[in-house]
Amino acid sequence: MEIGLIGLGKMGGNMRERLRRAGHTVIGYDRNHEIADVGSLTELVDAFTSSPRVVWVMVPAGDPTRDTVKELGELLSDGDVVVDGGNSRFTDDKINADHLAEKGIGYVDAGVSGGIWGLKNGYALMVGGSPENVAKVQPFFEALKPEGDYGYVHAGPVGAGHFAKMVHNGIEYGMMQAYAEGYELLTAAAVVEDVPGVLKSWQEGTVVRSWLLDLLVNALQEDPNLDDIKGYVNDSGEGRWTIEEAINHAVPVPVLAASLFARFSSRQDDSPAMKAVAALRNQFGGHATTKAGQAATAADLGGPGDTIDS
Amino acid sequence: MEIGLIGLGKMGGNMRERLRRAGHTVIGYDRNHEIADVGSLTELVDAFTSSPRVVWVMVPAGDPTRDTVKELGELLSDGDVVVDGGNSRFTDDKINADHLAEKGIGYVDAGVSGGIWGLKNGYALMVGGSPENVAKVQPFFEALKPEGDYGYVHAGPVGAGHFAKMVHNGIEYGMMQAYAEGYELLTAAAVVEDVPGVLKSWQEGTVVRSWLLDLLVNALQEDPNLDDIKGYVNDSGEGRWTIEEAINHAVPVPVLAASLFARFSSRQDDSPAMKAVAALRNQFGGHATTKAGQAATAADLGGPGDTIDS
Amino acid sequence: MEIGLIGLGKMGGNMRERLRRAGHTVIGYDRNHEIADVGSLTELVDAFTSSPRVVWVMVPAGDPTRDTVKELGELLSDGDVVVDGGNSRFTDDKINADHLAEKGIGYVDAGVSGGIWGLKNGYALMVGGSPENVAKVQPFFEALKPEGDYGYVHAGPVGAGHFAKMVHNGIEYGMMQAYAEGYELLTAAAVVEDVPGVLKSWQEGTVVRSWLLDLLVNALQEDPNLDDIKGYVNDSGEGRWTIEEAINHAVPVPVLAASLFARFSSRQDDSPAMKAVAALRNQFGGHATTKAGQAATAADLGGPGDTIDS
Amino acid sequence: MEIGLIGLGKMGGNMRERLRRAGHTVIGYDRNHEIADVGSLTELVDAFTSSPRVVWVMVPAGDPTRDTVKELGELLSDGDVVVDGGNSRFTDDKINADHLAEKGIGYVDAGVSGGIWGLKNGYALMVGGSPENVAKVQPFFEALKPEGDYGYVHAGPVGAGHFAKMVHNGIEYGMMQAYAEGYELLTAAAVVEDVPGVLKSWQEGTVVRSWLLDLLVNALQEDPNLDDIKGYVNDSGEGRWTIEEAINHAVPVPVLAASLFARFSSRQDDSPAMKAVAALRNQFGGHATTKAGQAATAADLGGPGDTIDS
Repeated sequence: MEIGLIGLGKMGGNMRERLRRAGHTVIGYDRNHEIADVGSLTELVDAFTSSPRVVWVMVPAGDPTRDTVKELGELLSDGDVVVDGGNSRFTDDKINADHLAEKGIGYVDAGVSGGIWGLKNGYALMVGGSPENVAKVQPFFEALKPEGDYGYVHAGPVGAGHFAKMVHNGIEYGMMQAYAEGYELLTAAAVVEDVPGVLKSWQEGTVVRSWLLDLLVNALQEDPNLDDIKGYVNDSGEGRWTIEEAINHAVPVPVLAASLFARFSSRQDDSPAMKAVAALRNQFGGHATTKAGQAATAADLGGPGDTIDS
Repeated sequence: MEIGLIGLGKMGGNMRERLRRAGHTVIGYDRNHEIADVGSLTELVDAFTSSPRVVWVMVPAGDPTRDTVKELGELLSDGDVVVDGGNSRFTDDKINADHLAEKGIGYVDAGVSGGIWGLKNGYALMVGGSPENVAKVQPFFEALKPEGDYGYVHAGPVGAGHFAKMVHNGIEYGMMQAYAEGYELLTAAAVVEDVPGVLKSWQEGTVVRSWLLDLLVNALQEDPNLDDIKGYVNDSGEGRWTIEEAINHAVPVPVLAASLFARFSSRQDDSPAMKAVAALRNQFGGHATTKAGQAATAADLGGPGDTIDS
Repeated sequence: MEIGLIGLGKMGGNMRERLRRAGHTVIGYDRNHEIADVGSLTELVDAFTSSPRVVWVMVPAGDPTRDTVKELGELLSDGDVVVDGGNSRFTDDKINADHLAEKGIGYVDAGVSGGIWGLKNGYALMVGGSPENVAKVQPFFEALKPEGDYGYVHAGPVGAGHFAKMVHNGIEYGMMQAYAEGYELLTAAAVVEDVPGVLKSWQEGTVVRSWLLDLLVNALQEDPNLDDIKGYVNDSGEGRWTIEEAINHAVPVPVLAASLFARFSSRQDDSPAMKAVAALRNQFGGHATTKAGQAATAADLGGPGDTIDS
Repeated sequence: MEIGLIGLGKMGGNMRERLRRAGHTVIGYDRNHEIADVGSLTELVDAFTSSPRVVWVMVPAGDPTRDTVKELGELLSDGDVVVDGGNSRFTDDKINADHLAEKGIGYVDAGVSGGIWGLKNGYALMVGGSPENVAKVQPFFEALKPEGDYGYVHAGPVGAGHFAKMVHNGIEYGMMQAYAEGYELLTAAAVVEDVPGVLKSWQEGTVVRSWLLDLLVNALQEDPNLDDIKGYVNDSGEGRWTIEEAINHAVPVPVLAASLFARFSSRQDDSPAMKAVAALRNQFGGHATTKAGQAATAADLGGPGDTIDS
């Protein structure tokens, strides 16, 4: 069957390949014309030989996605369906759907997980939309999803797909941070001699076995002390939105929030907050402060022991 | 080969069975004589037909384990080995090992993971001790561990096994809490219609797939809204020790600590801390407080909106 | 001088009184006509004998404030000024100001702190707006603020007042929670015999002395064990917005967020998240779960000690 | 009256001065003989002209204090009293007291707060010990404490003084972190133009007014952007012990723990935990990682927006 696919980056490019392997005809568009099958959205829409048309948008969340959906609203027709497979905030979905509905165009949101492994293993799909619209996209979902009984869910009405994906990512942040804190403690305490070996052993039989653990073991096999990597971690929007939605619903999420904040901290060369704490200690206790630009002395590294405190 | 096994509860009983299935001769002792093979530790030690003897202790951490190890120190001989497979704090291991070493008895600590699934799938083992002592226990480790390349590690000297297991459990707390917070947000927001379905879909292709996720899906299949379960969660010592060791080594562990604190909170009928906060709000803002024993009114449930605040 | 004041609740009522004591003429309006000086906003506006008019809005944040500002936009004239003294989100201020500016009406946002103590001690004021508009309100700020050099700041342009007040409240949450956690530890450990006495002693000479501490001491004098109060704590919008703004700016705020989440938890009869954790422990370890509606047994209360864990 | 004082550093030196101003005779000893009144502990004990003798120990917590108390046990006599005024862990107190009790020597623990301001304002004192022993030290407590009704408490038996001081410091960490996070948000958001001015305004009439706030305002007057200070913060033992005691008593202390962890993080050049998180993101998403030693690019700084995630 025919599908339009907009955005052929790391995710979209692999998805085109997986769809083609399943026998589908993919009309791919990308700003980078070298990798595109057509030269414009108009050409993409015109290239379909049958209807209704299904067009999958796989571009960065925010304005790029919103703008693409608007443009598709100009080009598509009654009965066609747009799928937003990007990492959009779920609150965008209703707006997009309402906009397209004015012309009778359907809208489906799809949270997609799997990263660079999706081409081989399939992409997990969390889908939101009306049963009618979802049905039109179903053949492509079947091609993209992993084999077997899992990896696909029609989670609810428009927005439910991206909401599920957002929470998925929030959980992911928490799990990654849990492993990371445990890893740091193992290395800091130096009671265990073979830290990568311990993590590898956990891959079977333990409560903490998971795909993320497998990946961490991989990473440690390549670089046993993570010497070549900096502890600098970006965040995508979904971790932030998870906390905001939790706040909206008065759900306590201490672990998910701590994971996000650890990423924020990892990107700071110096922390204004901790400058303020250091300034306060200096004010009340005469504690030496480390001047900006000055290396910490051995004495600074100590924990307990100051005679003077508060 | 022959092994003594002390403690035949949920863990020890299944381990005896798995060892026997592998062809070993297990001499089991338990306070509950109905399930024991011998009537005392003396009988257990005397029942061995060869030496060196290996005796595996699988009783509650703390005094029960310490007392058992001491008693074995009286009964065993030079060259024998005691294995502590319980959830002891790793700081106990050096003490136990030194005590036994006075008589030439070896000591190995083994962190054991796998719960009630271990009988079938094997037990993950994290082992600490000298190569010589570990070698004497190796045949039994082989029988207990899962098949394949994982699920066993000789993590380092005495204490390293329990340390690795402690960190494993700390990570476990964090992962469980991450799933739990995500689950609560999914249910609270009510954007997703089929929460158990979403979690089930995550079992393939996603970043958050894991054995714990599989278990959570199982639990939701049995009780889709967890109606029959109370949000009351105990903690074992290992979560606590993980935080204490992190503090000893100045390792920031916000996620692991938050997970432990969430369990503490879950066991409080009322929080003295939050009484203090409510009292403070009442003092400065004249905010109505909910009296002890009084049900919260609808108005109390509201979030933003008070005219008077601080 | 003349000022209109809309909203005569706990805050507005006291502010009218403080303004009058300072010699100002206050034209007060409230939905509750018994306490109002005029019967409608129209009457309020018409009651002024001079111009420009200053009208202070002191109603709940959100729709009530937004609606009131809109209505004032219909009634006031070029050169008049509206002050929003409520707990509005700072993002509302620009919208309000732009709306009023179309008719030449000025807008000033004022974060007001002081609660029920403001009548006597004065209200701390954090003000946002153009110098010209702020100048028109200055005589009333002088009457409302505490005596002395503090308690008033022109923090910046429109929105800066409410932003400063929002952060003030976020800090307040963190401070209250810090005292509360310390208080709980003092009571739980039972090493200190006279907990209220310890807190009282802290009121001079210590690093933790503060007005909030004074209030906590007051509360404990009235009810030494806080027996008559439930650990149930509402939150106003400002604590939530503080976290959201921190996320917007990638500022790590673990303490402020933990304080908010503690309030969320305090309002839950049972925690869906902790149900999920309990369900997980049950799945992997055969840990007994406490059934809904069932009292926890003594055994449930224990900390470390389970033989079987993960 | 006569008192021996051991340890004449920043705290002890000022305390000697305050005691002398109150008319007491202080026999001071320090390892630094230039500031000492006597050349050894033996000389100190012999210099008393009356009995019972009161000797106040003001040296670093841990071995220095424990060793000094032991040595005093050799030198003092039945009826004399040793005061530990340092920042010892409260669990040391019972050991010290029992040791001294063998010779009939009394023991009192005194948590002392006030830092470099204590000489002028007085030192807040939290005292543990028997009424009889506390009475012997009372004249010196009176001289050291602030004037007025506050700043002194006999908190309970031996250990209660240091326990109260420990909790005091735990709360202090939380309060400092709360201000610091709010400060960072104010500076990061740049909605408020005059951040020091806002904090200064809070010194009267607000809920967050406190001595710590006064100190922060002082610090910002000296260095408005804290340019000359590094966000590097040590911790003394008491913050750590507070968390450990909270864990011992199953008291949830998310705010106090987060404050401690923020200090740990502030001292790390690079975070092993965040290296692990970065490695994981790289594994599943092909996210570029920042290499060790490499500056972050502008692209790394972005929040939301990656096409590929999980």
